[in-house]
Amino acid sequence: MRARKGFTYGVTQEELRRHNLSTLLRYVHQHGPTSRAVLTASMNLNRSTIGALTADLSSAGLVEEELPGQHLGAGRPSLVVVPRAAHVYALAYMIGVDFVVAARVGLGGQVLDRRELYRPRGDYDLEDVMGHLERFTGELLSSEDIPPGAFCAGVGAAVPAAVRNSDGMLRFVPNMNWDDWGDAPLGDILHRRLVETFGIQAPVAVGNDADLGALAERTRGVAVGCDDLVYIVGEVGVGAGVIAGGEAMSGHDGYAGEVGHMVVNPSGRLCRCGARGCWETEIGEPAILAAAGHADGRRATVAELVAEAAAGDEKSVRALEHIGGWIALGVANIVTVFNPSMVIFGGLFGDVFPGIQGQIRTNLLSGSLGVVREGVRLVTPGLGADSTLIGAAEKAFEPLLADPLGFVSAMAAMPAPSSRVP
Amino acid sequence: MRARKGFTYGVTQEELRRHNLSTLLRYVHQHGPTSRAVLTASMNLNRSTIGALTADLSSAGLVEEELPGQHLGAGRPSLVVVPRAAHVYALAYMIGVDFVVAARVGLGGQVLDRRELYRPRGDYDLEDVMGHLERFTGELLSSEDIPPGAFCAGVGAAVPAAVRNSDGMLRFVPNMNWDDWGDAPLGDILHRRLVETFGIQAPVAVGNDADLGALAERTRGVAVGCDDLVYIVGEVGVGAGVIAGGEAMSGHDGYAGEVGHMVVNPSGRLCRCGARGCWETEIGEPAILAAAGHADGRRATVAELVAEAAAGDEKSVRALEHIGGWIALGVANIVTVFNPSMVIFGGLFGDVFPGIQGQIRTNLLSGSLGVVREGVRLVTPGLGADSTLIGAAEKAFEPLLADPLGFVSAMAAMPAPSSRVP
Repeated sequence: MRARKGFTYGVTQEELRRHNLSTLLRYVHQHGPTSRAVLTASMNLNRSTIGALTADLSSAGLVEEELPGQHLGAGRPSLVVVPRAAHVYALAYMIGVDFVVAARVGLGGQVLDRRELYRPRGDYDLEDVMGHLERFTGELLSSEDIPPGAFCAGVGAAVPAAVRNSDGMLRFVPNMNWDDWGDAPLGDILHRRLVETFGIQAPVAVGNDADLGALAERTRGVAVGCDDLVYIVGEVGVGAGVIAGGEAMSGHDGYAGEVGHMVVNPSGRLCRCGARGCWETEIGEPAILAAAGHADGRRATVAELVAEAAAGDEKSVRALEHIGGWIALGVANIVTVFNPSMVIFGGLFGDVFPGIQGQIRTNLLSGSLGVVREGVRLVTPGLGADSTLIGAAEKAFEPLLADPLGFVSAMAAMPAPSSRVP
Repeated sequence: MRARKGFTYGVTQEELRRHNLSTLLRYVHQHGPTSRAVLTASMNLNRSTIGALTADLSSAGLVEEELPGQHLGAGRPSLVVVPRAAHVYALAYMIGVDFVVAARVGLGGQVLDRRELYRPRGDYDLEDVMGHLERFTGELLSSEDIPPGAFCAGVGAAVPAAVRNSDGMLRFVPNMNWDDWGDAPLGDILHRRLVETFGIQAPVAVGNDADLGALAERTRGVAVGCDDLVYIVGEVGVGAGVIAGGEAMSGHDGYAGEVGHMVVNPSGRLCRCGARGCWETEIGEPAILAAAGHADGRRATVAELVAEAAAGDEKSVRALEHIGGWIALGVANIVTVFNPSMVIFGGLFGDVFPGIQGQIRTNLLSGSLGVVREGVRLVTPGLGADSTLIGAAEKAFEPLLADPLGFVSAMAAMPAPSSRVP
C-alpha cells in the first residue's frame, strides 16, 4: 500500500482489503479492545466495512467480539473487538553482553511470561546464548497457561549489533566476541533451532536493540503518535533507533543510527571501531566511570554517580558536568541532523538524564540554530528497561500484522512439524 | 494511501482511485510518454483499469494519448500516454546569495523557459529578490510558446534556509541578511504577489535548497530508483537533503539535514551559528579558500584550486588534502548515521570531488565500521547545477500529482482572478 520504489505501483481491490484488515488488526493490537463504533470513526470507514473486516479476522482466530461490560446509551451496544492475546503470541528475545531474556508476548503487546538471566559481562559465545534461549523457550512453551489452539505468530530477537536487513546477518557486534558472533546469520540459526527443537515454524526477525526500542516506544510507550523521534541507548556502546516521518529509518542495509560512531572529537581517544574521537569514546559507560573515578565496570555505579552528584559531592558534580557536556554536544548533532520532535534517553542515559537534562537543553537552545531545535522533547523511555524486549515482539508480529489472512493461510499450509514440545 | 500517524486509517474505494490516478500521472511525469501496455505491467493493474484511469486524466487535460510512431508487433498498437507538458506547467524559483533564477517547467520535468541573474554576493534584501522574480515571471508568462488553455499547476521556491514545513516560514537563513529574511513567511509573500500581479492562484511551496536537490536527483537525476540517499551541497554554507526509505526526510518541522552544523571539532573555529567546530567551519567555501591561500571569495577559485592540485602544485595538493580530510570525516559521520546507498556531492563539493574521492572512500572503509559502509556509492549530481531548480518544480507539482482530479476541480472552482498578465 506504500507508494514507494519510484511510485510505480497501483493498488488492486485485493490489496485494499489486505490494507484495511492490516490496519484494523494493528489498531486493536496497539490500542487494545476497541468498539466497532470507535473503529469506524478512527479508521474512517463505514460500519458495514468494519463489520466485514472484523468477521474475517474473527474467522481467522485473530480477534473475538464481546459485548461491552457497560452500556449506557440508547440503541444496540457496539460490539468490542478484542485481540486474542492468549491464543496468538510472539516469542521475544533480548541478547546483551550481560543478559539473556526471553518472553512470550500476546497479540496486544502484553508480556504473558518471561525468563531472564543477568550475569557478569563476558565474551559469551553464540552457543552459550543459544543454549539459554533454548532452555527459556522450552519453559515458556510448557506453560499450562497456553490454551489449546494457541500459536506462535513470530519470533523477534534484539541484539546490540548492526543487523543486515536483507538476511538478519550480524555485521558489527562491537561488544561481543567478533570471532564468534561476527557475520553470524542469527535469524537462520534461530529459525533452524526453533523448528528442530520445538516445531515452531514462525518467521524470525532479528533487529538492532536501539531500533527495536524506538519501535516499542512509538507503538506503546512514551512516543505514541510521534512521527519523528530518536531513541538513544547507551550501555558499553552507544546507538540510536530513528523513526522519521512515521517510519523506522533503517537505511539501505539496516545499519542507520550508529550515532555512537559519529566522530565528534578528532583529537580524542581511539575507539574500538578503529576511528579516533567517536561520540561513544566520550560518553560510553567506560568514559562515564573513568570521569567519576570509578573503574570497576559495574552498571550500578553510574546511578551511584548521579546520586552522589545530586547529594552535592563536588567530584561527582564535576564528572557529571563533563560527561553532560559531551552528551549535550552529540544530542545537538542528532537534533540538528534529524529534527526529531522527541529524543528518548534509554539505557544508562536514562540514569544520568535527571542530572544533565538542563545542560542538554541549554546547549540545544544556544546559538542561532536554537530556533530550529527549541521544540524537541527530551524524555526517558515509557516502557523502562523493557523497550527493547517489547520492540522485539513488535517486530515478530509484523508479518502477521502486515497481511493477517495471508499469514494465517500460509501458516495453515505448512507441513506438520516433526517434533513438538514434550 | 500511507499507513501513517499511528496506523489508524483505512482506505476507501475513492481513495484507491485517487491513489491509482496519482500513481499513473506520477509515472508519466517521471518517465515521459509511456504505452498503456508498459503502464499495465509497471503499475501491476489490469488493462481496463489503466484505460479508465487514462481516460479520466485525459478528460482533465493532464495527459493525451497518441498512437506510437512505430508499431512492429502483431495486434493493435498500445496507445502512448503523454503528459501535456506545454499545457500544464510549474513556476520554479531558485534563490541564492549570488543568483536569482526563475523557470517555467512542464509536466514531465522539462525546463521550457528560464531567466536568471548571477551577480556578486551581497546582503540583497527580500524586496530586491522579489522584484527580480516578479520581472522574470512576467517575462516567462508572456511567452508566445504558451498555448491557449495552459495553466500554472504550482509554484516552488528553493532557498538556502531552514524552512518550517507547516507554513513555509524561513527560520534559519545563515547567509542572507537575517533582519530582512529571518522569519519571513516566504510562501505567503510569493502567493500574494503572484495572485495580485499575474492572477496566478496555484499553490506555492517553499523548500530548502538541499532537500529539493535530493528530490530532483531521485526523480530524474543520478538517484532514480535509490531509496536511501544523502545529497550534500556546499556553497558558503553546507547542508544536506536526505531521502530515507524512499521518502524525503523532513524531520518534525522541516529542518532535518543541517549537517553543516554537526559539531566535529569542538576545539576548532567559531561558526556563524554561534557554536564552535561545526563541520561547515572546516569545509565551507571560506575554509577551502583559506586553506588554499585564496581569499577573494570568488567561486571559481575552488575549481582553480582543484586544477592546480591536479597539475601538481604542492601547496594546492596539501590544501586539498587538508580539506579532503575534513570532508571525509563528515561524510563518514553521515554514512554512519543514515546508512545511505548513495551520497551525492553537489555545489562546490562537486568541484572538489574528483580530487578527494579516494580520500573519502579510504576513510569510509577504515576501521571495523568499514563493513557497514562499503556499499555506498559516491557520485556528483546527474542534473548538474540545475538539481535545485528542478527540485523546486517537483515540489510545485506535488499537489497536482497527489490528487490529480481533485486538484483540477479545485482550480476550476476558484473565482476568476482580478488581473492577468498584460
